[in-house]
Amino acid sequence: VNVLIVHAHPEPKSFCAAMRDVAVATFGAEHSVTVSDLYAMGFNPVSSGADFLDRADPDYLVYALEQRNASASRSFAPDIQAELDKLLAADLVILNFPIYWFSVPAILKGWIERVFVSGLCFGGRRFYDRGGLKGKKGMLAFSLGGQAHMFGEQGVHGPLDRMLAHIEQGTFAYVGMDVLPFFAAFHVPYVSQEDREEMLLRYRAHLLGLSEMPLRRFPSLDAFDRNLRPLAADPDGSACAGC
Amino acid sequence: VNVLIVHAHPEPKSFCAAMRDVAVATFGAEHSVTVSDLYAMGFNPVSSGADFLDRADPDYLVYALEQRNASASRSFAPDIQAELDKLLAADLVILNFPIYWFSVPAILKGWIERVFVSGLCFGGRRFYDRGGLKGKKGMLAFSLGGQAHMFGEQGVHGPLDRMLAHIEQGTFAYVGMDVLPFFAAFHVPYVSQEDREEMLLRYRAHLLGLSEMPLRRFPSLDAFDRNLRPLAADPDGSACAGC
Repeated sequence: VNVLIVHAHPEPKSFCAAMRDVAVATFGAEHSVTVSDLYAMGFNPVSSGADFLDRADPDYLVYALEQRNASASRSFAPDIQAELDKLLAADLVILNFPIYWFSVPAILKGWIERVFVSGLCFGGRRFYDRGGLKGKKGMLAFSLGGQAHMFGEQGVHGPLDRMLAHIEQGTFAYVGMDVLPFFAAFHVPYVSQEDREEMLLRYRAHLLGLSEMPLRRFPSLDAFDRNLRPLAADPDGSACAGC
Repeated sequence: VNVLIVHAHPEPKSFCAAMRDVAVATFGAEHSVTVSDLYAMGFNPVSSGADFLDRADPDYLVYALEQRNASASRSFAPDIQAELDKLLAADLVILNFPIYWFSVPAILKGWIERVFVSGLCFGGRRFYDRGGLKGKKGMLAFSLGGQAHMFGEQGVHGPLDRMLAHIEQGTFAYVGMDVLPFFAAFHVPYVSQEDREEMLLRYRAHLLGLSEMPLRRFPSLDAFDRNLRPLAADPDGSACAGC
């Protein structure tokens, strides 16, 4: 199994970096592990026309169209191609990050935009269970300041998976990846060293238990017609649109 | 009324840029309008220790703590301070962007991370209806490839406001801003010039009608105790956690 860990934290000694190290140690003995440390790499997260060595239309940028063109001609900028090679070789992709504004840090959002390219990863009707990265698995591992009781139906912020829908459904599931249960390290800036060590042990147990865990459920295009309208056979939305 | 439009599209001739121009023209006659064109500015979206001229702790970066320190001592990097001044002067903030992965482009995500600073905009128990930007309004205006019928409870992607919860609730409402109804320009890359012109007219009507539109409803800290646990007086969650 090839594991790709994409790590995005500005502090090299952070708890989030310790989570990355736990994943490397846990998988490293039996699997091949690659780490992209975006801050250490100085990764450029800004999508632009400079991402393509040979533009299909040099006068008017439609980013997804240029990605499709570059997918066919292998003309991505070298920093994108290097990450794309890692992504395509991976069986399991872990995004490891601190929650910033209920999402990934901008440097990681830009990695997704520039590396999950139209053409190879999705495009046309190749999305959700027909996505280009079908067969791969994705997982989020993150630290945050909030506590567990602040999330859920009764929590002040609402369900955590609602806040993360744009990543788990809108990114991982969209390109066809199976989505493994996330690992959340709550309240990190405020807890004791002992609590942090306990969280790292729980993270290791989470990783070791992944093969036993149920996959999250996401939309299937089988429930929709070619214009993406719900099929009559699924009048109650049981195909889990937006589940 | 001071209007701040934060525009983030890599193509200067894009439909999204035309939306920005409609907003400038619609508000410009009666109001003061400021535009931050993030791509044109070459805005740096990567949060880092270099964002602070005078670090509280130069050896270990806790980004929110450094923001609080810099809020007190006014020691933000000049590019942040310039945007922060615009934000604090604004009564209405419009984020104008193409949907990338069911969210804002990375360059705009980084603008939020670096400019919505802990200390001035939120911090401690100053969030949601006690947030530091209470009194300001926020609105999303975006273009996307998808069509309207792909969203909603029966749509393949689920409700659009679920995908955007991390911005509308987790960012605007979190800092205390009132959230105005978003404007979505669907299917932009695939429609005729005539349809595009009609969408721009509808956007103008949306902007002119904003004062009549109901505000979106978001959590109130009144329904939670000081540890953010739901108050017994609200056993059914009617305070709209995660609404």
